[in-house]
Amino acid sequence: MWTACAGPRDPVGPGGAPRGSALYQYSVIDALLAGVFDGDLTCGALKRHGDFGIGAFNQLDGELVLYQGVAYRIRFDGSVHEVSDDQRVPNAFATVFAPTQTIALPAGATLQDLQAELARRLRPSAAYAIEVRGPFAAMTARAPEPAKPPYPELAAHLAAHPHTFELTATHGVGIGFWLPAYLARVNIPGLHLHYLADDHKRGGHVLGFRGDGRLEVRVMELSGVNIELSRRPELDQIDLRRDRQRDTQRVETGDRRPAGE
Amino acid sequence: MWTACAGPRDPVGPGGAPRGSALYQYSVIDALLAGVFDGDLTCGALKRHGDFGIGAFNQLDGELVLYQGVAYRIRFDGSVHEVSDDQRVPNAFATVFAPTQTIALPAGATLQDLQAELARRLRPSAAYAIEVRGPFAAMTARAPEPAKPPYPELAAHLAAHPHTFELTATHGVGIGFWLPAYLARVNIPGLHLHYLADDHKRGGHVLGFRGDGRLEVRVMELSGVNIELSRRPELDQIDLRRDRQRDTQRVETGDRRPAGE
Repeated sequence: MWTACAGPRDPVGPGGAPRGSALYQYSVIDALLAGVFDGDLTCGALKRHGDFGIGAFNQLDGELVLYQGVAYRIRFDGSVHEVSDDQRVPNAFATVFAPTQTIALPAGATLQDLQAELARRLRPSAAYAIEVRGPFAAMTARAPEPAKPPYPELAAHLAAHPHTFELTATHGVGIGFWLPAYLARVNIPGLHLHYLADDHKRGGHVLGFRGDGRLEVRVMELSGVNIELSRRPELDQIDLRRDRQRDTQRVETGDRRPAGE
Repeated sequence: MWTACAGPRDPVGPGGAPRGSALYQYSVIDALLAGVFDGDLTCGALKRHGDFGIGAFNQLDGELVLYQGVAYRIRFDGSVHEVSDDQRVPNAFATVFAPTQTIALPAGATLQDLQAELARRLRPSAAYAIEVRGPFAAMTARAPEPAKPPYPELAAHLAAHPHTFELTATHGVGIGFWLPAYLARVNIPGLHLHYLADDHKRGGHVLGFRGDGRLEVRVMELSGVNIELSRRPELDQIDLRRDRQRDTQRVETGDRRPAGE
């Protein structure tokens, strides 16, 4: 019997610096972008692959944050709820978070400053789990309204039902991944963060922030990416050959212009 | 300790039909296309992830076939050699092959007929390991000449040093994968086969064939794709943002026209 294990290994790999677990992901981002909003993976199964991660819920009913082994749903009204292990997801990304590097961002740093610092310090060919802990003077977050079948494409749904939260003076943690360009279609290149306030009352997909004082960023290099493929029949009805990178950018940045502009 | 194991699991998944192990792969195809011809994975480590697979060797010294747990190198002179476990690879793809479906192709079937039959029978969103066993009336195969640093891009190297073998009346097996479009950049979408003759004297990357009598095709649906990322510093020197799909097509089909045409 052969097994390939994604748990902590390769503590000091050929690159010299230590790296951690692999990223486990269920399904691919192109399916979510194309409107496949239901999946068969449960939160319980997701947690077997890590204690730290992000994702979506079936019907697109909220944003998922997996933090310190607990899964939370951030609903489109901005409220946060701990979720039971039987809840299912169309897309999720998780790892066992054991950071090996800490970066301090100066007071007033923004999401763009964080992106610039990661681009400056990290290897463009590698993949990383990222945690940014604040106090934040301002945090712009978003969560999706549940969709009704037949589902539209993700960018169209988000544009038609914008739910963005402008949080101020919030303490909490941004959780997510910094991934290389060649993972486009499979996942989101660049930085993808979800926010969870420490009081577990606010959160969402991060569109922007400004730190209030020093921000601590913790980083773990991932050893790989383990994709579990969804077997939902809807995946065979969409055009998987289309390059949806433009969609990714619109969805990530909250750009609500129609695709043609 | 969390572990995510890629061994046989999910024997009857939510899609209804059985599926097998995950595809394990070392590094991504975009790195090979860009001229990263060296890696740190040994054949011995590759075999821990499966008994069936394909790949390349460091310096691009031949094509790799992993068949029934034994690794072979097909050199640019067309000769085949069993390789020791310490040999290293820049890119390789392997799984534990346990086919669940058999397709018979009629006498005289070609590579294009096989591709059409797989497209007709298999789900476009899923990933498969494929084995095609012949007698073949004709088999066109290729193997690369070793490259010297600084390495050129893969398509340029293959175009400058063409080594194509026109085999006739050959018995053997084509080994490889049939992968969905969203794995472009990570792996090769569509069919990617390497050939190993039963006498272990001929083989190579399959560019075309014509069956001599009935061909038996054995298929296993893969549960996922586990990418182990290479840490070679060369990966950080190449442009990983470029879309190299055109290159993939040129390399796969043996098209030797310059990229501009």
